Amino acid sequence: MAIENAILPLIKEVGGPDAEYYNYRRAPSKAPFYELEDVTKDLTYALEDQTRHGQKMPLIVLMDNGSTEEDVPAMRQAQVYGMEMLVVDHHHPHKIVDQFLIAHVNPAHQGGDFGVTTGMLATEIARMIHPAVEEKIRHFPAVSAVGDRSEAPEAALYIKLVEDKYGRDDLKKVALALDYEAFWLRFNEGRGLINDILCLGRLDRHRRIVDLLCEQANAAIDEQLRASMGNVKSTKLPNGIIMNVLDVENFAHKFTFPPPGKTSGEVHDRLCKKFEGKPVVTIGYGPDFAVLRSRAVRMNIPQMVKELMEEIPNGGVSGGGHLVVGSIKFVGGMRKDVLAKLAEKIAACGVDQVAGEKGGTAMG
Amino acid sequence: MAIENAILPLIKEVGGPDAEYYNYRRAPSKAPFYELEDVTKDLTYALEDQTRHGQKMPLIVLMDNGSTEEDVPAMRQAQVYGMEMLVVDHHHPHKIVDQFLIAHVNPAHQGGDFGVTTGMLATEIARMIHPAVEEKIRHFPAVSAVGDRSEAPEAALYIKLVEDKYGRDDLKKVALALDYEAFWLRFNEGRGLINDILCLGRLDRHRRIVDLLCEQANAAIDEQLRASMGNVKSTKLPNGIIMNVLDVENFAHKFTFPPPGKTSGEVHDRLCKKFEGKPVVTIGYGPDFAVLRSRAVRMNIPQMVKELMEEIPNGGVSGGGHLVVGSIKFVGGMRKDVLAKLAEKIAACGVDQVAGEKGGTAMG
Amino acid sequence: MAIENAILPLIKEVGGPDAEYYNYRRAPSKAPFYELEDVTKDLTYALEDQTRHGQKMPLIVLMDNGSTEEDVPAMRQAQVYGMEMLVVDHHHPHKIVDQFLIAHVNPAHQGGDFGVTTGMLATEIARMIHPAVEEKIRHFPAVSAVGDRSEAPEAALYIKLVEDKYGRDDLKKVALALDYEAFWLRFNEGRGLINDILCLGRLDRHRRIVDLLCEQANAAIDEQLRASMGNVKSTKLPNGIIMNVLDVENFAHKFTFPPPGKTSGEVHDRLCKKFEGKPVVTIGYGPDFAVLRSRAVRMNIPQMVKELMEEIPNGGVSGGGHLVVGSIKFVGGMRKDVLAKLAEKIAACGVDQVAGEKGGTAMG
Repeated sequence: MAIENAILPLIKEVGGPDAEYYNYRRAPSKAPFYELEDVTKDLTYALEDQTRHGQKMPLIVLMDNGSTEEDVPAMRQAQVYGMEMLVVDHHHPHKIVDQFLIAHVNPAHQGGDFGVTTGMLATEIARMIHPAVEEKIRHFPAVSAVGDRSEAPEAALYIKLVEDKYGRDDLKKVALALDYEAFWLRFNEGRGLINDILCLGRLDRHRRIVDLLCEQANAAIDEQLRASMGNVKSTKLPNGIIMNVLDVENFAHKFTFPPPGKTSGEVHDRLCKKFEGKPVVTIGYGPDFAVLRSRAVRMNIPQMVKELMEEIPNGGVSGGGHLVVGSIKFVGGMRKDVLAKLAEKIAACGVDQVAGEKGGTAMG
Repeated sequence: MAIENAILPLIKEVGGPDAEYYNYRRAPSKAPFYELEDVTKDLTYALEDQTRHGQKMPLIVLMDNGSTEEDVPAMRQAQVYGMEMLVVDHHHPHKIVDQFLIAHVNPAHQGGDFGVTTGMLATEIARMIHPAVEEKIRHFPAVSAVGDRSEAPEAALYIKLVEDKYGRDDLKKVALALDYEAFWLRFNEGRGLINDILCLGRLDRHRRIVDLLCEQANAAIDEQLRASMGNVKSTKLPNGIIMNVLDVENFAHKFTFPPPGKTSGEVHDRLCKKFEGKPVVTIGYGPDFAVLRSRAVRMNIPQMVKELMEEIPNGGVSGGGHLVVGSIKFVGGMRKDVLAKLAEKIAACGVDQVAGEKGGTAMG
Repeated sequence: MAIENAILPLIKEVGGPDAEYYNYRRAPSKAPFYELEDVTKDLTYALEDQTRHGQKMPLIVLMDNGSTEEDVPAMRQAQVYGMEMLVVDHHHPHKIVDQFLIAHVNPAHQGGDFGVTTGMLATEIARMIHPAVEEKIRHFPAVSAVGDRSEAPEAALYIKLVEDKYGRDDLKKVALALDYEAFWLRFNEGRGLINDILCLGRLDRHRRIVDLLCEQANAAIDEQLRASMGNVKSTKLPNGIIMNVLDVENFAHKFTFPPPGKTSGEVHDRLCKKFEGKPVVTIGYGPDFAVLRSRAVRMNIPQMVKELMEEIPNGGVSGGGHLVVGSIKFVGGMRKDVLAKLAEKIAACGVDQVAGEKGGTAMG
C-alpha cells in the first residue's frame, strides 16, 4: 500500500486518469511465497496485455515475499519471459533468489533483523519514489511494527513518530482490521476498503470501519477459542517446555476467520499467559499440516523440517518459516509419525528465560 | 426477479440501453443471510464504481434474506459506508435489523405468517414500482407459493389467479427447474436462463427448458436417493416420533445436485410417506453440520440451538432457521456430543396430529 | 489449439483485429466430458452476448470430449437454445450423441481406433479450414501421439514427419509441459503461455519454457512418488495379476501437480517396470473415487462399473473411461464394499502377454 500510494500519482501523471487501472495491479498472495498460481496469472495477464494492448512486460514487485528458496520456481518462470522482479522483504533471505532480481531490499543484507518489517522498508522506499506521499503514509511503519510484533529499536521510533495521532492500541486495531478484512477480500485488492482502514480517506469513516472490523474480528476469535481452548492437550516435557497440541480440523470452525494459523497463534498467546514465565510450544494440526508457535524455546523450524524429511522419507514433509514460528506440511497418512517425531525434537530443544511480560512471538 | 423486471425498464428509460449493466446488479446469495463475503464484494464494487465512474453508493435490496440477527454483521459494514438497505423477507424478523434499514417488508409485521412468501411480496412491490410489469410476472407468486410449500390462504388465491395458464404441476416444475438451475449457476445471475425458466421470453423455449431441467433434476434426486435411502437409520422414540438419521457426507454424492439440505428434505419427504400419519424428524448430518426436517413435531430449532450452545460450550454450535426446519453447525470433533444431545431434545418434543395428506414441511 | 490457429486469422479477417476476443473463446474443461457447469457458462455468456451485443448463438466445438453418454445432459440443454455443436474426439463414441451434433469426427466411425488422437484429427481439420496454418502446426499430431501414447501406425508417421525438428524426447517434453501448465492454468486458456509451449512464437522462449516446465513437472512427480511409492500395497492374485493399491488421499499431496489420476498413472508406470513382463493393475483410491490403470489385463472398466451399479445399488457408483484405463466414483460410505467387489472382478480377468518393453497404457 505504501508503494501503491507513491506510484499511482506518477502513473496517472504520465498515463492519464485511467492509467492506474491499466498499468498497475496489486495482487494479494495467499501463500507466504510467490506461488506458481501467482506467476501463472501474472504471465497470462502480461502476455495478453502485450499482445492485445501493446504493453511492455510488467515489473513485478514482491512485497513481504520473495526472499526464500520457495520463491524460486515462480521466479524462474517469470525470468523466461523477461519479467523484471524486485523484492522488498524482511524474511531471512536465501542467496539463491538474487540471480532473478534487479533489486532485493532486505534488512539482513545490512545486518538488520526481521524486526525491521516490510512495512517499514516499503514506506521508506515510497518516500524515495515520491516524497509528497510521506505525510499520508507516515503511520504505516508503526502499524506494521505492531502488526508484526517487532521488537527492533526502529519499531519504537516509528511508533513514537506518530504518537500524537495513533496510540499503540490504535495501531493494533488498524493491524487487526487489515488482517480481518484481507481474509474476506481473499484475492481481491479491495482498494477502497483498505484505503479507509489505513486512514487514506475520510477520518470519520476510518474510525468507524476500524472499530467495527476489530469488534467483529475479536468476536470471531472469541467464538473460535470457545471451541478450541477446551480441546487443547497440554503436556509438560522433561526439559520444562509446556507443549500444547490442538486439532484445528476438528476443534475449530473451518473456512472462516480466524484461519488455522491465526487460531493456533491466538491459542498460543492465551496459553503463554496461563503458563506465565515458562517456555511454551503450541502445535495446531490439521489433516496434512501443523502450525507451530513458541516462546522461550530454542527451536529451529527450518532445521526440524529438514530432519523430518530425512527421517520420514515417504512423509511428504515440507515447510519452514522463521526459526521459532512456522508451519509444516505432510501427507495425511503419515501425520501420526510426523507429529510424534516433531514432539521428540521439541523435547530435545533448549529453553531460554522468558523475557519481560510479552505473551507470544513475532510473526509476519 | 419480480423487482428486476419492474426496475430495469425504468433504469433504461433514465440511463439509456446499457444502463442496466452499469447501474444494476443481481447477486445470488449462497447462505440464508447477508454474509460478510457478500457485503465485502458489494462494498468493493460500490467503492470502485464511485471512485472510477463517479457513481453514487448503491441501494441494497435484500430479497428473502435480511430479517435475522445473522444479517447484522454485514449490515453494520454496509452502514459505515452509507449504503442504504431495504429488506423484503418472510422469515421471522428480529427487531434488531430495523435500525439498519430504510424499509423492511415482512408479513410478520402485520400478523401474517411466512406462508406469505417473499415471491408474493416481491411481485406486489414490483406492481407498485412499475404497474406495466404486472401482466408479465403475474405467475411469480404462485410459483413461489408452490416452491415454498405455502399453506397460507394467499397461496391458494395466487395459484387460482393463473390457473388458466399454469396448473399446480406446472408451477412445481418451474420451481424445481429454478432450484436446479440456481445450483449450477452458483453466484452467477444467469439472466437469460432464469428469464426463460420464468417464462419471460419465448413460450416454446420456456416449456422445453423447464421440462428438461425438471427431468434432469428428478433424475439427479433419484440417483442421490438410491445411495441415501438404504443408509438411513430410523428409530421410534418413546414419544412416538420416528427419528431418521442419515450421514450425508458418506452416503450421498457431494458437490452435485441435490446438495445436502435438499437431499435431507427429499429423504424426509419419502420417509413421511412411508411412516404415514406419524410424527417424523429427519436429520441429515455431515462432518460439521446437521440439517433438520420434521412433520407434526413441536420443535423449536432456534431454541434447541440456544440450549446446545450452553450445554456444549466448546461445541462451536450455531444455526437456526424456521421453528421446525433448519440447520445446525458445530465443530467436527464435537459432532457425537451435539447429535446425542439433539436426539434427547427431539425425544422430549410434543407431537401433533398429522394434518391432511401432505408429506413434508414448508421451506424457503 | 490447432483449430484456434486455423480460425483466428479468418475471424480477424472478417471482424477486425479485436474480433478474436469477442467472437471466439477457448474454454478448457476439467471433466472428461461436457459438464453441466460448462454448458451453463456457455449458455450464460451466449445469451448475454445475444441480448447485449446482438451476437448470434455460438457454434460449440467440443475437442477430445463429447462422444459419450455423459455428454448428453449438457448437450440437451445446449440444444434447447439452438446452439450448434460439433465433436472432434477419439474416445469410443456412443451413437446417442449424434442426434445433438451437426458433425462428429471420430476415428471409430471409420474403423480406426483411439490411437488416432484428437490432436491428429484437429490438425487435419485445421489444414482444411485454413491451409496456410499447416506449416505452423505440423508438429501438433506428433506431440499428441506421444502425449496420448498412441500405438497407431499414424503415430509413427506423424512423428517421422517432424523428426528433423523434434525428436521423441522433445515431443514428450512438450506434452508434459502442456500437462503441467494446464494444471496451473485451470480454467484459464492462457493463450500466450500455451502458444510458447507449442512453439508458435519465439523459438528461444519455447525451448526455455518447455525445459523449465518439464524440470518442474518431473521434480513434482518425483516428490509425489517419494510420498506414494512406499505406501503402495501390492498383491499377487491367483490369475497372476499384480494388483497394486494406493490411498492417494492420505499418501499423496493434495491440490497440487500431479493430481490423483496422474499420480496413479506414474505409480503404475514404475510398478510396470518393477514387475517386468507381468500383468499389472494399479488402483489409486480417494474417499469417493478410484482411478484404474492396467497392463496386459483383459479389463472392461465400463462393464465393471455397470456390474458394480447393480451389485451395490446404494453405492452411488458411476464412471467409466477406456476399456483398460478409467475411473470409478462412489459414495464414501460404500468405498470398502466397492473396492472389495472391484478386486474380485480384477481377480476374474484374463491376462495377456506383455508386449514389447512398454511400461504403461495409453491414455487421453
